[in-house]
Amino acid sequence: MVSTTIKIDATQADLSDPLRAYRDRFELPEGVIYLDGNSLGALPKSVRQRVAKTIAEEWGEQLIRSWNTADWVHLPQRVGEKIARLIGAEERTVVAADSTSINLFKVLSAALDLNQQRRKIVSERDNFPTDLYIAEGVAKQIGKGHRLVLADTPKDLPDMLDEDVAVLMLTHVNYRNGYRHDMAALTRAAHDKGILVIWDLAHTAGAMPVDLAGAQADFAIGCGYKYLNGGPGAPAFLYVNPRHQGGFRQPLSGWFGHRAPFDFDAAYSPSSSIEQYLCGTPPVLAMVAMDEAMSLWVDVDMEAVRAKSIGLCDFFIQEVGEFAEELGLTLVTPRDPGLRGSQVSYSCDNGYAIMQALIARGVIGDFRAPDIIRFGMTPLYLSFAEVAQAAAILKDILVTRAWDQPEYKVRGAVT
Amino acid sequence: MVSTTIKIDATQADLSDPLRAYRDRFELPEGVIYLDGNSLGALPKSVRQRVAKTIAEEWGEQLIRSWNTADWVHLPQRVGEKIARLIGAEERTVVAADSTSINLFKVLSAALDLNQQRRKIVSERDNFPTDLYIAEGVAKQIGKGHRLVLADTPKDLPDMLDEDVAVLMLTHVNYRNGYRHDMAALTRAAHDKGILVIWDLAHTAGAMPVDLAGAQADFAIGCGYKYLNGGPGAPAFLYVNPRHQGGFRQPLSGWFGHRAPFDFDAAYSPSSSIEQYLCGTPPVLAMVAMDEAMSLWVDVDMEAVRAKSIGLCDFFIQEVGEFAEELGLTLVTPRDPGLRGSQVSYSCDNGYAIMQALIARGVIGDFRAPDIIRFGMTPLYLSFAEVAQAAAILKDILVTRAWDQPEYKVRGAVT
Repeated sequence: MVSTTIKIDATQADLSDPLRAYRDRFELPEGVIYLDGNSLGALPKSVRQRVAKTIAEEWGEQLIRSWNTADWVHLPQRVGEKIARLIGAEERTVVAADSTSINLFKVLSAALDLNQQRRKIVSERDNFPTDLYIAEGVAKQIGKGHRLVLADTPKDLPDMLDEDVAVLMLTHVNYRNGYRHDMAALTRAAHDKGILVIWDLAHTAGAMPVDLAGAQADFAIGCGYKYLNGGPGAPAFLYVNPRHQGGFRQPLSGWFGHRAPFDFDAAYSPSSSIEQYLCGTPPVLAMVAMDEAMSLWVDVDMEAVRAKSIGLCDFFIQEVGEFAEELGLTLVTPRDPGLRGSQVSYSCDNGYAIMQALIARGVIGDFRAPDIIRFGMTPLYLSFAEVAQAAAILKDILVTRAWDQPEYKVRGAVT
Repeated sequence: MVSTTIKIDATQADLSDPLRAYRDRFELPEGVIYLDGNSLGALPKSVRQRVAKTIAEEWGEQLIRSWNTADWVHLPQRVGEKIARLIGAEERTVVAADSTSINLFKVLSAALDLNQQRRKIVSERDNFPTDLYIAEGVAKQIGKGHRLVLADTPKDLPDMLDEDVAVLMLTHVNYRNGYRHDMAALTRAAHDKGILVIWDLAHTAGAMPVDLAGAQADFAIGCGYKYLNGGPGAPAFLYVNPRHQGGFRQPLSGWFGHRAPFDFDAAYSPSSSIEQYLCGTPPVLAMVAMDEAMSLWVDVDMEAVRAKSIGLCDFFIQEVGEFAEELGLTLVTPRDPGLRGSQVSYSCDNGYAIMQALIARGVIGDFRAPDIIRFGMTPLYLSFAEVAQAAAILKDILVTRAWDQPEYKVRGAVT
């Protein structure tokens, strides 16, 4: 009678879900249980019309005038302010711009410039690779022997924070296993040694409340297209603590970072505020989609988001726990909600094929090489009933070996 | 009877215009003569539907799967190939990505890395400011004393090309006065001294044929939202000559530049081809709009574009020439088509107010501080009749001093 009990629990949880009205604000295809909002967030219904209006009226009819009349020129700041509330940032400390990789380049360059006498950048081997690649690129260009030093496990980090370290650069929630660092404690430990801290909030923003100001974080970056639902390749964001704004701090010194871009001065004179972290002309269509997606968040209670996220993850872990060991799945996400983000990951053999079989049955998660299957829990549009059903389908696929088909082993360009 | 003669000429020119069918492929508002396609290109009609489909079907229904099923992942290369034909680039040498500013950062960094023993970057004081700002940013970050040396006039350039110069970095067509450099001759002169050359094609691509391969240019960058009509803040592009691809050459080493991004290696191993110049996740909505805009160019005869561009500019110069001197306008664009791009600019007092008065009468050009009014000629959607009418309205505004109203002197954030 296990499955009956579970269904009742899920139904009750859904009935008492304070966020359940948000589901109706997303387009979600019939027959799909979408557990990949940590990779690409679902489509907020209002985005389509907003973008269509921007194309037809602002671009098509008003043309160049829309930089002023539709205030295109301040989209980076307007979107940034909406993100700021979700991540506990002060006013005028966040802008939406460029990609996460490029924003990391900006803030890492700034941090190394602020901490010039030190040569180590500490991160984790299991950080999202682009963050490590960008650190390599920054270090190589500066050419002063900066070294990237990687922790093998989070436990190793505190001992690595010595006085040769310029910057501690971490992704708050690990993209593979969902492990979450203690932002406040690590920031404090780093500051005690004179180390600046950059937090990558790619798997955090929109998934749970964050308190950048409270943690006294130096810099942060994050992604627009995961939990924030800004659309594929949406503009990313960055945060700079007010104490680090000003100066000529970041090298991607394009005209939108100039104090007066439309004066067309030949010499760069940086904005003394967060605008210095802008570079080129903002991508208006992408920025408008992101702005519309962020409008949905205006009245969202982030504590309720976190509570539901914990509930969804706990519930999925419980459901899958009934058969995981027997059928070859090993939970790699911490059971303790205090140590995790909003995803549940398992390592297993044949993970790629298992995920393809799940997708064929309408359960969309994703695979991360070499052996991780990931299930993202997005509190705004997922129900407990769906999570129960996803677990049941996963079980069925494993029991029947439905994944063991040649077509499930063909890799696409993107896994 | 001058105006009658002019009308007949314009009508004849429009009737024999081989490009006139393209006009119908753009949305253009009633009552507007749009002479600002060099700042923001007009909306190709098919873009609205293409973006709507991407949002509703690819994002909304297919969700994460579209990275493969809609081949989102190769949009930068696909758009790049379409641009390549217009600028005379070899296959697999162009990608669409990021902004012009960021792309300049990449190729300038690569060029300085290739020419490490030299310390001067030569450009022009009147280059578009963001190019100069980015050069400052690159030089500051490398921190080896690279200096930006600026020519006051194009004539000064040849003598500045000495053996301390690492890079010559020029915008092919000047954004203010429309002056066009001789790409082949300057590239050859630079190469004779061991100097690498970067061409900014912001005011060139889509306005006239270019032969990057023939000129043996080293690098090029350009803008998607001007003559190419990719939409506000559209993805920019970059070109890298095949002889300079490979190595670990550009510091914005995000995961899309990795040889195998979805292997999630901790160490950066760059693509040996043009993909190395990609950085973060591509902005799909903006990229799809750009791709659709570029589809319109597939069968466009660039020689016909150039011939019509020369015709439109000559005609406007002739028409305005009838009253320019008397009414305080000084032509700053070369009369010789061999020395100009596809715009006509005048210096004048009260330029900002004059342009506002023109816009109020439906003639949209733009103003560039301190004293330039610009009129961009876009052969795909402009007629000779419109150009004649624009000149007549300009004359009327100057004769009646219609610009001398307080409301025309209020500056917007974007001029």
